[in-house]
Amino acid sequence: MPALKLTPYKCRITWLGLVPEERPDIRSVPVDDVELTYAGVQGEMHSGLTRPACVRVKEQFARGTEIANTRQLSIVSAEELAEIAAQMGLEAMDPAWLGASMVVEGVPDFSHLPPSARLQGPDGASLVIDMQNRPCLFPAREIDKDHPGRGPKFKAAAKGRRGVTAWVEREGRMAVGDALRLFVPDQRAWRPGK
Amino acid sequence: MPALKLTPYKCRITWLGLVPEERPDIRSVPVDDVELTYAGVQGEMHSGLTRPACVRVKEQFARGTEIANTRQLSIVSAEELAEIAAQMGLEAMDPAWLGASMVVEGVPDFSHLPPSARLQGPDGASLVIDMQNRPCLFPAREIDKDHPGRGPKFKAAAKGRRGVTAWVEREGRMAVGDALRLFVPDQRAWRPGK
Repeated sequence: MPALKLTPYKCRITWLGLVPEERPDIRSVPVDDVELTYAGVQGEMHSGLTRPACVRVKEQFARGTEIANTRQLSIVSAEELAEIAAQMGLEAMDPAWLGASMVVEGVPDFSHLPPSARLQGPDGASLVIDMQNRPCLFPAREIDKDHPGRGPKFKAAAKGRRGVTAWVEREGRMAVGDALRLFVPDQRAWRPGK
Repeated sequence: MPALKLTPYKCRITWLGLVPEERPDIRSVPVDDVELTYAGVQGEMHSGLTRPACVRVKEQFARGTEIANTRQLSIVSAEELAEIAAQMGLEAMDPAWLGASMVVEGVPDFSHLPPSARLQGPDGASLVIDMQNRPCLFPAREIDKDHPGRGPKFKAAAKGRRGVTAWVEREGRMAVGDALRLFVPDQRAWRPGK
């Protein structure tokens, strides 16, 4: 009676990055592999079992309230990055501009993956997808530094393509090139109006 | 840009229970309130920041593998318990038979709440819903002890009505009678075939 089902999608890591704890801006720095602990990516600015509540959850928590950290990783898809770039008139989107932790390819409609989906690497390390990420204004600043005038186009182009946030369910290592298995909750949609 | 939206449902806690760590069976014992920590309900058999993987996640993990504990609480709805009871020819379902942690009323189609939904209590304590729970065979044994011959009807009657599993996002206290606010991810369904 598993509650998660394996999907047929071949998901592959094409890029990994981390935002250093002492950072000058939101950019992430490319790395070949990451060590995942229950607190997130070791040495990463977003790591922590808990985090102070930010403006994204202001409907629920006063800013700074300690809450469980479901935003340890920011995962985006290569396909959606290409769509954002095309819409912005850029050749490519550098995931570092977004402060992304991981780029994957092979999963259609990636940003709308069902919440509580799982991505599992070759050594068994597993990530829980919390939900869709939302475009914020900071990437626009980074894009504008490299492509003056293009930054302001980011927010609209990234809508619905900003990837997902995730946290570590099982510790382990993930590396560029790894194939990930994608599991999604095996349940129908909520029907509150039935 | 909050990723969660408040729903209009008035959700109220009608029962709380905990399964003692030294337990003779799966039954939970009713309590008036619970203290929620990041490890779950204090003094509860299912508490823990991590848990050993069980048969429910055998597609992902070898049995006993240490994983994050997203099954700290088992939450069921009063309405769905009444439906199960009716289908089994019982006057009422005792949530203790299920080893439930919490019974709530007021949310339609409760077992199919969107994964990653949040339930928040009056003091700000917050639970993350991982996903639908699945009927197992143990409640049938407990029902059969109190209503001989009825136990075997449980599994079919409980299908799609077995509630959800949840874990603690913000610490605090919840008590019988508390009103909970229900937030759900503000995103459309996944469309992998688009």
